[in-house]
Amino acid sequence: MALAYDPHFIGSENLDDDAATSPSPLVLTQDELKKIAAYKAVEFVTSGMVVGLGTGSTSKHAVDRLGELLRQGVLTDIVGIPTSKRTHEQALSLDIPLSDIETHPVLDLAIDGADEVDPEMNLVKGRGGSLLREKMIECASKKFVVIVDESKLVDYIGGSGLAMPVEIVPFCWKFTLHMLQSLFQEADCVAKLRTSSETGEPYVTDNSNYIIDLYFKKNIGDLKAAGDAMLRLPGVVEHGLFLGMATTVIVAGKLGVTVKNKS
Amino acid sequence: MALAYDPHFIGSENLDDDAATSPSPLVLTQDELKKIAAYKAVEFVTSGMVVGLGTGSTSKHAVDRLGELLRQGVLTDIVGIPTSKRTHEQALSLDIPLSDIETHPVLDLAIDGADEVDPEMNLVKGRGGSLLREKMIECASKKFVVIVDESKLVDYIGGSGLAMPVEIVPFCWKFTLHMLQSLFQEADCVAKLRTSSETGEPYVTDNSNYIIDLYFKKNIGDLKAAGDAMLRLPGVVEHGLFLGMATTVIVAGKLGVTVKNKS
Repeated sequence: MALAYDPHFIGSENLDDDAATSPSPLVLTQDELKKIAAYKAVEFVTSGMVVGLGTGSTSKHAVDRLGELLRQGVLTDIVGIPTSKRTHEQALSLDIPLSDIETHPVLDLAIDGADEVDPEMNLVKGRGGSLLREKMIECASKKFVVIVDESKLVDYIGGSGLAMPVEIVPFCWKFTLHMLQSLFQEADCVAKLRTSSETGEPYVTDNSNYIIDLYFKKNIGDLKAAGDAMLRLPGVVEHGLFLGMATTVIVAGKLGVTVKNKS
Repeated sequence: MALAYDPHFIGSENLDDDAATSPSPLVLTQDELKKIAAYKAVEFVTSGMVVGLGTGSTSKHAVDRLGELLRQGVLTDIVGIPTSKRTHEQALSLDIPLSDIETHPVLDLAIDGADEVDPEMNLVKGRGGSLLREKMIECASKKFVVIVDESKLVDYIGGSGLAMPVEIVPFCWKFTLHMLQSLFQEADCVAKLRTSSETGEPYVTDNSNYIIDLYFKKNIGDLKAAGDAMLRLPGVVEHGLFLGMATTVIVAGKLGVTVKNKS
């Protein structure tokens, strides 16, 4: 897989007022890095496009930027397809014209964050809880631009030690949790029902389902086989592995922005 | 695959009062054939078993029979696991002790009908709308006894020309319908949303999902590949192909009962 580097030196004029007189190391927060990646992604949008709008803290910046460029008249004739109720509301508040994949079954471009990105541009998504709609919409896009800060890069899927989410039907969820954990017992998997931190009740997705978060201690190996095995469990609706879908990954790091295209 | 035939000549004493004096051809209705298969299946149940209780017109007879044998004391210490809300209510009304797969993750036996049975004992199920819970429960059973009248036997899956059901999330269902139809375009597939005949509204499953019924004009070929391809569509929750799951198929026909066991 070829790497296409497109490093941008990050200007410091808005971030360090003393830069002219006393140069000092530039320290960007994680949120600033997310914003840089998001703004870069919106450069891929041209007037007239149907654009998938992702969900999460990084995507939020991209949607804000898209709204700004529409308001300024830099972009025109854009149709947004939101991947969650939350993004729908954000886009509405920015006056971005919206539609859905029933009306627009083929999207020109989708922009969304990810929780993990491996060297082959495979992703884990869904920590924000919107993996199913995200997958439906991003599968329908000609191009899928993923925006992350560098903390999301992993050597292998599961390597962050954070959750790999799976959307399941609520019916007998403990049974499905047990089946998922058993499926990955060689990877020392621990499966947990996602709950609301406020109420302790199960977290409910936009599709009225539950989320099981899988934590792996070891590499799960063949990702395609893992994905298919999860889908074959009858209680599983969708999983957070997005394999071979990303066409571009934009990584914002402390030293600049890297744009990696699918070879 | 070996065929184990166990033909039973059907007694006519309850069906033809004139049999003793004037033998005449015995004509059984489809419902009588279903009942014969169902009663035969319940012979596989022994006291102390955890039993999956199917859904549909054939399974209804099996649940009735199970309730009768419990009431008579012929069977004791049975736990039933219903595969739908409807069967749950029926079993409750018969005083069959009930539980679920969270409490009993391994069942001794499940009994259920099918919409199609091919020569390799692969099934189509779900015309009754309960395919997801049926699959969850029947996957968890050591033995799965399928009960059908002979009209359900097909040369190949889809061969009846009747529906192959797929449970999907309601979100953008037209998009998923289109994707399913495209997946099987070589089999001249027509996909239809199942609606209530009374209201015309979409039929809603026990899991608050919709059902797309697929109709094939040609053989869909590799069933496992077809099943996996459907599951990979993000909007698909579960499909009605039950492959390699049946351990016994009981077929009631006009000439008797056939019991076919998995080799």
